Amino acid sequence: MLIKTNLDEVKKRETALFFINEHIQKNGRRDLYDLTGLSGAYLLKKEDFEVLETYVGPAVFEKMLDEYGKTHLGGEKILGFNRTSAGILATILALVKKDSTVVHYLPELPSHPSIPRSTRLVGGHYLEFDNLKDFILPENTSLVVITGSTMDHKVISEEEFKQIIKKAHSHPGGKIPVLVDDASGARLRTIVFNQPSAMDLGADLVVTSTDKLMDGPRGGLMAGKSSLIDEIKSKAHQFGLEAQAPLVAGMVRALEQFDPENILNSLDKKKKLKKLLNQEFEGFNETPTGVMILPRDIALELEKRNIDTLLSPDDLSFLWAMILLKEYGVITIPAVGMPGASPTLRLDMASFDGKKLELNEIKNILKGSFKKLEII
Amino acid sequence: MLIKTNLDEVKKRETALFFINEHIQKNGRRDLYDLTGLSGAYLLKKEDFEVLETYVGPAVFEKMLDEYGKTHLGGEKILGFNRTSAGILATILALVKKDSTVVHYLPELPSHPSIPRSTRLVGGHYLEFDNLKDFILPENTSLVVITGSTMDHKVISEEEFKQIIKKAHSHPGGKIPVLVDDASGARLRTIVFNQPSAMDLGADLVVTSTDKLMDGPRGGLMAGKSSLIDEIKSKAHQFGLEAQAPLVAGMVRALEQFDPENILNSLDKKKKLKKLLNQEFEGFNETPTGVMILPRDIALELEKRNIDTLLSPDDLSFLWAMILLKEYGVITIPAVGMPGASPTLRLDMASFDGKKLELNEIKNILKGSFKKLEII
Repeated sequence: MLIKTNLDEVKKRETALFFINEHIQKNGRRDLYDLTGLSGAYLLKKEDFEVLETYVGPAVFEKMLDEYGKTHLGGEKILGFNRTSAGILATILALVKKDSTVVHYLPELPSHPSIPRSTRLVGGHYLEFDNLKDFILPENTSLVVITGSTMDHKVISEEEFKQIIKKAHSHPGGKIPVLVDDASGARLRTIVFNQPSAMDLGADLVVTSTDKLMDGPRGGLMAGKSSLIDEIKSKAHQFGLEAQAPLVAGMVRALEQFDPENILNSLDKKKKLKKLLNQEFEGFNETPTGVMILPRDIALELEKRNIDTLLSPDDLSFLWAMILLKEYGVITIPAVGMPGASPTLRLDMASFDGKKLELNEIKNILKGSFKKLEII
Repeated sequence: MLIKTNLDEVKKRETALFFINEHIQKNGRRDLYDLTGLSGAYLLKKEDFEVLETYVGPAVFEKMLDEYGKTHLGGEKILGFNRTSAGILATILALVKKDSTVVHYLPELPSHPSIPRSTRLVGGHYLEFDNLKDFILPENTSLVVITGSTMDHKVISEEEFKQIIKKAHSHPGGKIPVLVDDASGARLRTIVFNQPSAMDLGADLVVTSTDKLMDGPRGGLMAGKSSLIDEIKSKAHQFGLEAQAPLVAGMVRALEQFDPENILNSLDKKKKLKKLLNQEFEGFNETPTGVMILPRDIALELEKRNIDTLLSPDDLSFLWAMILLKEYGVITIPAVGMPGASPTLRLDMASFDGKKLELNEIKNILKGSFKKLEII
C-alpha cells in the first residue's frame, strides 16, 4: 500500500493542492472541475466585508445564522463550527464523561473516524451498529449518534431513525441525548428521500456540513436544544472549535440562497451518466446525486483487462483520482480528502462544476484517465 | 460573584454581541470603537473571492500563507488554525502522550487556560513556572511551552527564553520540543522589545494570533520544523482544527499588508493616555501598546469613593466593560472575551479604532461610564 497512515493522507492532499494551484496559475479557475459535491462556495455581499472583524462580525452574523439555521435545520438554537468534525468533538467533550459509552448507528459501516476518535480522546467507550437487530444501549451510554447518510451517501430509513431515538429517549437509566450527524443528510434525506428533518424526528442535536450539497464554505452547522447547545458552545470556545466571523458570514449567505431545485435537477443527470459510464466500465453505481465506483470495483476493472497490479484497491482509487486532477483538472475526494475521507471515487452532479460538463465529456475523461491508470 | 462558570462567560459574551448588534442596527459600524487590540480585520481583494472554495481555496492561499508566514515568523513550514487555542490543542494531541508532562514557562501566572486544559484532555501532567529559580523539567517531559507575552502583555526576557530552550534541548532524557505561544508576542516582543523571533531564539514551533496587533481575522498561525508541523497538521485535520479557506485568505492579506510602524506609533499615545486617565483614576498602568486597569484596582477606585459593593473585582470589570459597550460603543475584552480571557480592562492604542478617538474623548468616556458603575 502506498497510502498507509494519516500522515501519508496529508501528503497526498498536499500533492493534490499543488496540482490544483498549477491548473489555476496556468489557466485560472475555469480549467478546473470540482465534482466532489463538497466544493462549497463563498457568496458574500459587498457590505458584509465592512463588519467582518473578530468581535463585530459575530454580533452581526451569528444572529442571522441563528435565524437562517433554524429555518434549515429546526431546533431552538444554532451554533457554527470550523468543521463538522469540530462540532462532533465539541459535543463529545461536553456530553461524554470518561468510561461512559457512545453508541453510533449508521446506514453502513465503517463510521466516519471523527466519532470514535473523539470518543477515545475523552476516554469513552465506543460501540457502532448498522442494523437494528444487534443494536443495544449499555447502561452507561452518555450519547447516541445517528449518521443520517454515509460519506458514500447511503441513507438510513425513517423507521430506523424513529426506533433509535425512541430507544435512547426511553432508556431505563434516563433519557440519552441523540446527535444526528447529517453532514449531507440534512439535505439529502429531506429533499431526495422525503424524510423529516432530524429535529422533527425527535433528535436533540443535529450537525450538517455547509459545503455539502449547498454553496457554503466548509464548516459545521449545529442545531438543537438550547441547554445542550450552551454546554457545547462553552467547550467549543474553550478549545477554539467555533466558526469565525468570515465562515459564519459565508454560511449565512449560503443558507439564504439555498435552493432544493438544484439537488432535484441532478437526479435525472446522474441516471444517464451511470448508463453512459457503464458502456466502458461495469462498476459505476448511482449515489443520490451522482455516480461512484468503489475501490474494489476499480481493481476488478483492471482484472477484466488482464492487468496485474501490486497496488491495493484504495491506492488504485487514489491514483485514478490524482490522474483525473493532474491531467484533466477534475477534483474528486480520493485526491483532496482529509485523512479518513472515503476512498470511493464519486462524481457529484449537484455540484456547481458538474453543471458545466457534458455527460459525454465526463465519459471521455474517465475513459482517458483510466487508460493512464492501466499503464502505471 | 455574578460570573462564575464558563457557561456564564458564554452568556456574558452573547449579551455583549447583542449590544454590538444593536449599535450597528442603529448607527452602523462607525458608532463602535473596538479598543480590544484584537479586533482584527478582513482585507480580501476582489479576485480572492472567486477561488474561495473548499478545495480550490486552500490550493491558492495555503501556498501564499506558507511564504508570507515564513517571512513573519521564520521556520520551515507554516500551518493555519481556526484559532490559536486550536493550534495549541493540535500540538498537544500530536506531541504529548498520556502520563507525560507539559512544562509551561510564562512571564507571570496565571496561564491562558488552553494549555493546561488541552494537556488534561490527553491525560498529561501539567507544570507551570514564572521564574527560572523554580524551573524544572521532569524526566517524562514531552513538550515545553513558553508564553512570549501574557494576555495582559507582560513579556519574558530574552535571557529567560534562551535558558529555557537550552534546558529543553539538552535534557538528559533527550531533546524536548519547545512551542512558543507568541499570540501577540510575535509582534510585541520583536517590534516593541527588540527581541529576536521565537524561531531565531531556537524554538521548534511558534504560534501567533493573526488578529492580535495585526489586521487579520481571528485565527492561529503556526511555524516550525517541517517534521513536527506535518504531525500536527495530521491531528488538526482529524479533529477539524485547521483554518478554512476564507480564514487563510484573510491571514494572507493581513500578513502582506502588515506594517510595524502602526505598533510603534501607539507607544507615545498610550503614555499620554495613562497620564490623562490617572487625573481621574489611580489604577491605570501602561501596557506595551495601551493602558489597562486590573480588577482589584477597579475595586480600589470604588473604595476610595466610599462606595460599598457586594460584587467581586472581576464582576466590577465585567460590568464596567458592559457599560462602556452599551452606553458608549466601546468594545473591550471583559465584555466580549471568550471563556478564560483576562478580566483586565485594557484599551489598546494600536487598534484600528484607537486611532479614531481623541485622548480627551477616551478620558470622558471612562469618567462617564465609571459614574454609572458607581450607582449600580
